[in-house]
Amino acid sequence: MPEITFLPSSIVIDAPPGTELLEAARRAGVEIDTPCGAKGTCGRCIVRVVDGDVESDSLGVLPNTAVVEGYVLACKTRVQDSPITVETPEIAARSGGQFGDGDETYLVRRELLPTKWEYGPLAVKWLLQVASPQPEDGMSDIDRLTRAIQRQWGKLEVVYPIRIIRETADVLRASEGQATVTLVLDEWKLNVIRIEPGDQTTRHYAIAVDVGTTTVAVQLINLTVAQIVATQSAYNDQVACGLDVISRIDYAGRPGGLEGLRTRVLETINRLLTELVRNRGIALEEITNAVVSANTTMTHLLLGLKPDFIRLAPYTPTVLETPYVTADEVGLNINPDSWICFSPSIGSYVGGDITAGLLCTDIAAGTDELCLFIDIGTNGELVIGNNDFLISCACSAGPAFEGGGIGCGMRAAIGAIERVEVDAETGACEYWTIGNAPPRGICGSGMIAVIANLFTAGWLDPAGKLDTTRHSPNIEVKGKQARYIIAPADRSATGEPVAISEMDIENIIRAKAAIFSACAVLLKQVGVGIEDLARIYVAGGFGRYLDLEKAITLGLIPDIERHRFQFIGNASLMGSYMVVVSQDYRQRQLDLARRMTYVDLSNYPGYMEEYMGAMFLPHTHAELFPTVSAQLAER
Amino acid sequence: MPEITFLPSSIVIDAPPGTELLEAARRAGVEIDTPCGAKGTCGRCIVRVVDGDVESDSLGVLPNTAVVEGYVLACKTRVQDSPITVETPEIAARSGGQFGDGDETYLVRRELLPTKWEYGPLAVKWLLQVASPQPEDGMSDIDRLTRAIQRQWGKLEVVYPIRIIRETADVLRASEGQATVTLVLDEWKLNVIRIEPGDQTTRHYAIAVDVGTTTVAVQLINLTVAQIVATQSAYNDQVACGLDVISRIDYAGRPGGLEGLRTRVLETINRLLTELVRNRGIALEEITNAVVSANTTMTHLLLGLKPDFIRLAPYTPTVLETPYVTADEVGLNINPDSWICFSPSIGSYVGGDITAGLLCTDIAAGTDELCLFIDIGTNGELVIGNNDFLISCACSAGPAFEGGGIGCGMRAAIGAIERVEVDAETGACEYWTIGNAPPRGICGSGMIAVIANLFTAGWLDPAGKLDTTRHSPNIEVKGKQARYIIAPADRSATGEPVAISEMDIENIIRAKAAIFSACAVLLKQVGVGIEDLARIYVAGGFGRYLDLEKAITLGLIPDIERHRFQFIGNASLMGSYMVVVSQDYRQRQLDLARRMTYVDLSNYPGYMEEYMGAMFLPHTHAELFPTVSAQLAER
Repeated sequence: MPEITFLPSSIVIDAPPGTELLEAARRAGVEIDTPCGAKGTCGRCIVRVVDGDVESDSLGVLPNTAVVEGYVLACKTRVQDSPITVETPEIAARSGGQFGDGDETYLVRRELLPTKWEYGPLAVKWLLQVASPQPEDGMSDIDRLTRAIQRQWGKLEVVYPIRIIRETADVLRASEGQATVTLVLDEWKLNVIRIEPGDQTTRHYAIAVDVGTTTVAVQLINLTVAQIVATQSAYNDQVACGLDVISRIDYAGRPGGLEGLRTRVLETINRLLTELVRNRGIALEEITNAVVSANTTMTHLLLGLKPDFIRLAPYTPTVLETPYVTADEVGLNINPDSWICFSPSIGSYVGGDITAGLLCTDIAAGTDELCLFIDIGTNGELVIGNNDFLISCACSAGPAFEGGGIGCGMRAAIGAIERVEVDAETGACEYWTIGNAPPRGICGSGMIAVIANLFTAGWLDPAGKLDTTRHSPNIEVKGKQARYIIAPADRSATGEPVAISEMDIENIIRAKAAIFSACAVLLKQVGVGIEDLARIYVAGGFGRYLDLEKAITLGLIPDIERHRFQFIGNASLMGSYMVVVSQDYRQRQLDLARRMTYVDLSNYPGYMEEYMGAMFLPHTHAELFPTVSAQLAER
Repeated sequence: MPEITFLPSSIVIDAPPGTELLEAARRAGVEIDTPCGAKGTCGRCIVRVVDGDVESDSLGVLPNTAVVEGYVLACKTRVQDSPITVETPEIAARSGGQFGDGDETYLVRRELLPTKWEYGPLAVKWLLQVASPQPEDGMSDIDRLTRAIQRQWGKLEVVYPIRIIRETADVLRASEGQATVTLVLDEWKLNVIRIEPGDQTTRHYAIAVDVGTTTVAVQLINLTVAQIVATQSAYNDQVACGLDVISRIDYAGRPGGLEGLRTRVLETINRLLTELVRNRGIALEEITNAVVSANTTMTHLLLGLKPDFIRLAPYTPTVLETPYVTADEVGLNINPDSWICFSPSIGSYVGGDITAGLLCTDIAAGTDELCLFIDIGTNGELVIGNNDFLISCACSAGPAFEGGGIGCGMRAAIGAIERVEVDAETGACEYWTIGNAPPRGICGSGMIAVIANLFTAGWLDPAGKLDTTRHSPNIEVKGKQARYIIAPADRSATGEPVAISEMDIENIIRAKAAIFSACAVLLKQVGVGIEDLARIYVAGGFGRYLDLEKAITLGLIPDIERHRFQFIGNASLMGSYMVVVSQDYRQRQLDLARRMTYVDLSNYPGYMEEYMGAMFLPHTHAELFPTVSAQLAER
C-alpha cells in the first residue's frame, strides 16, 4: 500500500489506493475542518500535496492558482498507487491559533508558571508492591491493596469506586503483585481512581479545558514532565443554538434544550479529545484529571444545570465554586473515575475562565502594583486590583473577535488572514495568512488590522463607513452597503472573495465599544486613572498575536505607554494548565475567587453614555487617544 | 367498571370486563407466581374467588374438588361485569414464607432487636430553611444550601453528587427555601444523597436484602418508625445458571457469564422492589439506603466481581468488607445516590449472610455462654463461640431444603405442603398447606416432616428406601424407584400428584448429612461437646416453622434438650433489617466479622468419615440420637 506522509507532523500511514485523503488524515490523527460535511462545497478542508500524485475533483471549487500550487480539497481527493506527502493545517489547528509547539508557546512570563517545587497534580500515580494472597489470612484482594497503599501514605481511609474493585483481582495477579494506582488525596481520604498492572508511573496524563461561548480548547498534558503535549480547539457546537450566553439561556428553556446544549458542548470536547490522543499512543483512560475553565453559563450548561437564574434577578447561579464531580458524572470521555476540577466563578457574569486567566498575571503572584486584566471573548470581563483588593465586571462584546457574526470571519486556523496592510493611495492591500495557505477567511487579529489600517489610511471614517467617493479596486458597493475586498475570489481557497462589509465593521465597533466603555467605567468606579495602572493584561482568542498599535487605533484598549501592555492569549487555557500541574495554583485560584468582588456596570449611571462615546474610531473624545490623534493629524 | 377486591390485603381496583385476573392482580400490586409464563400449565397462579362470578378456563388443569371451592388459575380467568373478591397467595409470598404481618413476625427474641436508643440509620433526613438568594452577596444556590446544612451539623465538608446539584436550583425556589435533605454522615463529610422541596421528613425508606444462592428476599422498611412495611421473596433468577455456588462460578467464566449473572440477580431484586412499592404510594427514589447480606460468591456476582479466586487456592476473594458503593454503581433501582452497605464476609465460604444472621443471636449481644449458629441454605454455615472467640466453617448442602433439585419442591409460598402426618398402620397421610390452598408442591419443613414421619412410622428405612414389601395406597413403584404420594393428582392444584421420590429423599439425606457432619467436626475441632452449648440457633428458609422433633429425627440437628434450640428463620434478612435501622448494629456486625476466624473442614482428617456416618437416618451411630432411638424402640 502507498505511504502517505503528513507534514508538518511527519506522521506516516499506509492507505490502499482509492482512499479519500480526508479519511487518511483522520486515520493518521490529523485534524481537518469539514463544516460542509465533506461535500466539497466549503473549501475548508484544503491541504497541499507537496510530493506525489493524487486523483482530485477539487478543480471546480478551488481557484486555478491554488490548484497549480498543489492545493486540493481533502474530501475530494483520492490516494493513487504511489507514495505522497501532504502538508496539512495541523500546526495552526492543533495550537488553537495561539501556541506553537516550541518555546514561543508561552505568552505568559516564565516566572508566573509553577516551578518544580510547586508541581503537584490532583491525581498522583504510585507504584505498589502488594503482598501475595495467603491461605486463611483473612485478607481479601482489596484488603491487601489497601494495606499496600497505607504503607506508603499512612492510615488514611482508602475509597474505591466499583470499577476499580472489579479490576483489582486480575491486576493484582497479573504482575506478581506489582501494580500502579492513581490516587486523589482528598483531605481525609485516599480515592483510588485507576489501577494498572506493573509499573505505569511514566504514563500519566491530564487535560486543561477552556470552554468559551464561541470557542472550545482542550490541551493534553503529560503530568510526568508537566508538559503540554498538544492543544486542539474548535467552535463550540452550541453556536448553532445562539451566539451569546443570553440566547443559550433562552435555548436551554425549550423542551430538551438544556440536555441538547449539554450534549453539544460535551461532543465538542470529546471530539477534540479523540483528536488529541489519536496516533499518540495514549488511551483516553490514561487521562485521569481535567481542569475546566468556563464562564458561569458555560459551566452550568456543561454540568446540565438550569441556567435560568443566572439571568433572573437576583442573578444567583446554582454553583460558583463547583464541587468536584467525576468524568463519568459530567460525561467527559476520559478515565471515568477522574475528578473534574472547575475553575471557580465569581458571579453570574464573571466565571472560571477569569479566575483561571488571572493566574497568568502578577495579580496571582501577589503584586502590590495596580493591574488591569481584560479578557476579550464573546463576553468581555475586566478585573482591576492588586494584593489589597480585586474588583471585576463584565460586558457583552459578542463573538465578532472570534469570527462569529462576521461574513468571512473564522477562528485563527490555517488559511485565516491574520495581518493586513492597506496602501493609503490606492486602498489596495497586502495580507498574510496563518500557515501561508490560500485565504479561507479572516480571524480576530486580521479584522482589527484591516479596520485600523483602513481608518488610518483614510478609507474608513470614524463612524465605520467606507469612503466610496474615491475609487479603489478593493471597495465594492452593493445597494447602500459597501464592502472591502481583502482577497479576491481567484486567490481565495473558497472561490469567494474574503471581504469585510460595513455591517461587519459595525459589529467589531460595537464589540470594541463594549470593552472600552466597561474599562472606562470600571476605572471611574474604583476612582483611579489609566495612568495609575502598572500593567494591563489583554487576553483573548484573536489570533496568535494581538497587534497592539492596531488595537489602540481601533479604540479597543486605552492609548497609554505600550510597555505597560501584555498580550497573554488564551489565558483561561493557560491558567487551567497551571491548575492541572499544581494544587498550589488551585489554592491560589480559590483564594483569588474568594476575595474578588463583582460590580454590575449596567447599574452604573454613566455607562450608556460611555458606550455611545466609544462607538467611534477610536473614540468620540479624540483626546483619550493622543497618539492615534497625532498619527491622524500627520496624514 | 367492576371492582375487584384482593384479600387479604383488601386492595381494591377497577378493571374493565374481560381483564385477565393475573393482569388485574399485577396492576393491584399483588404478587402471583407464574413460572410457566401464564400458559395455564403449571398451576402455580392459583387464587380463590370467594365472591362474585368470573369466566374461567381453569377446569382442565385444576382438580374438580378445587374448582368447586372457587379455586381458579389467575392466568386463565377473566373478570366479568360484576364485582368480585379474590383471595390471593399474598401473605405467604410477601412474607417470604417466614413472616406474617403481625406480631409473630419476629422469630428473633425482642431483646436482641435495636432499642429506640440504638436507632440510627445510615441515611438521615433533615428539614432545612435555606436563606433566600440575595443580589450580589456572592453566594450560589449550593453555597446557601451548604450554609443551611452546616448550621445544623457543624462545619463539616458537604459533598454533592451531580444529580443533586442539578435539582438544587428548582428545589430551593419551590417552597420558599424550605427543603428536605437526605444525608449520609461519613466520618469527615456530609454526603447529600437526595433533596426535596418542603417538609418530606416523614417519608423515609430503606430496604434490607438477603441474596441467597437459591432465594432472594427484599424487605421494605419505613425508617421514620423503624418498621417493616412488607417483605417479598422469589427464587434467584441465577438458578437457571446452576444450582450451587460452584456451578455459578463456572458459569461466570463463560463469555458474558459474569455480566449475565449480575443482571439476573439484579433483575430479581429490582422486580421484588417494584412489587414492594406498587400500590403503596411509595416511589423507588424515596428509598435511600440498602443493606445487602449475601454469601461471598453472591456478593461478588451482584457487584460484577470475578468470582474465580473464591474457588482457586488460596481462596482469596476480591472483597470481604465491601466498601460503600452507590445504588447507581450497583444497579439497584432505588435512589441512585444511596449508599449500599454490604454485610461483611469472613472468607470465601462464610459470607455476609452469616454476619447478618449472627445479629439475631446472643453472640452479637456479647454473651459469655457458648452458642452455636447453624444457617441451613444451599450452603450451610456454622459459627461457634461467645464473647471470647468465634470460629466459623462451611459445607455444601445443596438447594434441597429450599425446594431445589426436588421433584415437587417449592419455596414456602401459598399451596406449599408445610406439615405432614403419616399413619403408621396404612402409610396414608394427612397434610397441611400454607394458606390452606390446594397443594402445589412441598417446601423444606414439609419435606423434613414427611421423611421423619415415614421413618418413625416404619415406611422408610435408615438408608432412605421406602418399604415396598407392604402395601400402602400412597407408595408407588416405577421400575427400581419408589415414590411416596402425599397429595393425589385430583386434590393437587397442578393436576399432578405431589410426591417425594427416593431420589428426593437421598438429596435431603445428603443435605442433612453435610450439615450434621460439619457440626460434629466443628465441635471436635473446638474441643467441646454438644452438651457444652447453652444455645443452638437454627436459621434457614425451610418454611414458617421448623418442626424441631422432626429435624432431630432426620438427624439434621443434634439430639439434645429441646429448650436449647431456637429457630430464627431468615436470620440474614432480619440481621440486615437491624443494620438498616441502627448504625450501632452495623458496628457490632463489623466487630463480629473482624474477630471471627474460619476453618476449612475439607482439610480436617475425619470429615469424610463423619459425613458418611451421617448418611443414614438419623445416623449410623444411633447412640448419638438417644431420644430418636428410644422412640424407634417403642414402635
